Amino acid sequence: MTRLHLILGYDGRSFSGWQSQPDKNGVQDHVEKAFAAILGKRVVVHGSGRTDAGVHASGQSAHVDVPAERLAPDRWRAALNGHLPPEIRVKRIHVVNESFHARFSAKSKQYRYRIFNESWLDPLEIGRAWHVPGGLDVTAMEEAAEVLTGRHDFRAFAANRGKPEETTVRDVWKIALRKQGAVITLTFEGEGFLYKMVRMLAATIVRAGQGKTSADEIRRLLTDPSAKKSSHTAPAEGLYLIGVGY
Amino acid sequence: MTRLHLILGYDGRSFSGWQSQPDKNGVQDHVEKAFAAILGKRVVVHGSGRTDAGVHASGQSAHVDVPAERLAPDRWRAALNGHLPPEIRVKRIHVVNESFHARFSAKSKQYRYRIFNESWLDPLEIGRAWHVPGGLDVTAMEEAAEVLTGRHDFRAFAANRGKPEETTVRDVWKIALRKQGAVITLTFEGEGFLYKMVRMLAATIVRAGQGKTSADEIRRLLTDPSAKKSSHTAPAEGLYLIGVGY
Repeated sequence: MTRLHLILGYDGRSFSGWQSQPDKNGVQDHVEKAFAAILGKRVVVHGSGRTDAGVHASGQSAHVDVPAERLAPDRWRAALNGHLPPEIRVKRIHVVNESFHARFSAKSKQYRYRIFNESWLDPLEIGRAWHVPGGLDVTAMEEAAEVLTGRHDFRAFAANRGKPEETTVRDVWKIALRKQGAVITLTFEGEGFLYKMVRMLAATIVRAGQGKTSADEIRRLLTDPSAKKSSHTAPAEGLYLIGVGY
Repeated sequence: MTRLHLILGYDGRSFSGWQSQPDKNGVQDHVEKAFAAILGKRVVVHGSGRTDAGVHASGQSAHVDVPAERLAPDRWRAALNGHLPPEIRVKRIHVVNESFHARFSAKSKQYRYRIFNESWLDPLEIGRAWHVPGGLDVTAMEEAAEVLTGRHDFRAFAANRGKPEETTVRDVWKIALRKQGAVITLTFEGEGFLYKMVRMLAATIVRAGQGKTSADEIRRLLTDPSAKKSSHTAPAEGLYLIGVGY
């Protein structure tokens, strides 16, 4: 048995998210189907974590066990891409030790959120950025990003998934804002993120830029256990999983 | 009468090129339809020049005459974008002198050609770049670009359009190559380009990078009047009209 580590990119608009779905249109379904077509039997592809429907990836990670020496690792990539829809590509592939697990070995994740800040949305940004018309105070956005960075209880910035016993404390190492013309990108790096947390953080930072929330209010959401959840989530199509660190 | 100058962006995949078409799916058709919806009568929109089906624009220019003071110029943009499909946006609009003509006043044009050079095509580059797998010698590409720069008879690098009397001499001021990861961009700037010329120059530069042509052969095509036309044209979806200078 050989364990393969795959780095994948996909256009999230074409799929029902990463995870295997009853409609068989999860990215995982398509990757498993490509392996099955080559191997003649089902294998399970383990991703580093889910991405929601519409969320893009330039650096999703996954692992899979295949019969040893079935194909040289450099042949696997071409073989898989030959069976995958063009909206999913295996970018790199290599053999890893059997102790490697795409999800449990992950030490960090990096996401990027793209905002298009003009009264009109660039046609080439449709489905690839969140269109936010109107003025944005970048200094207020940077202030909000700074307050959110660090080790906090992010319970107010996560959608419920019915597992109340799990900790909602996460360590966000970095939130970097970059403005280039009408495009503002927010790059998030941390040990891990709660369900929908990056999209909720992006929405909160944009709301700070719009003057609809403040650093003080965000601080309160991070420290007051009785605070209500944030009810704002940025759209999926602005989000990109850009890398998983091991 | 007021003459308006429009700067437009569009995703070329959605349209049959710039020029008005019998199928009414030229970008020009859509812009004229938006004006007609606002004005209640037909006006002609004059573009700076055609773009082929599939070619994108971030900086197409056009002018149009509208009844004076019908709308303030800053209202026209929102009004037009409200009537246009999202794949076409008016980015900027301003009033110009009646001597301004989008086509005849143009002093320069700037195009960008995008190449994706990896064995796999990034899903987020589908329809936005030319996928060129295999090794490319960037130095040979730069050499080819240098030979093509300047004032030459580009008859070997133009598709026939049945107007043999017109000059095929053009002045290409700049061809800049930039490589960033797997993406190679070629930026062309000149006083004007012949039909399909940018796509033929891009194909020639790529072929130089593949070792399929050489600086000497390109030089011969530029100087030998009996030389056959180049028969290679890069795909439309890699090309962007990024600006028109006046």
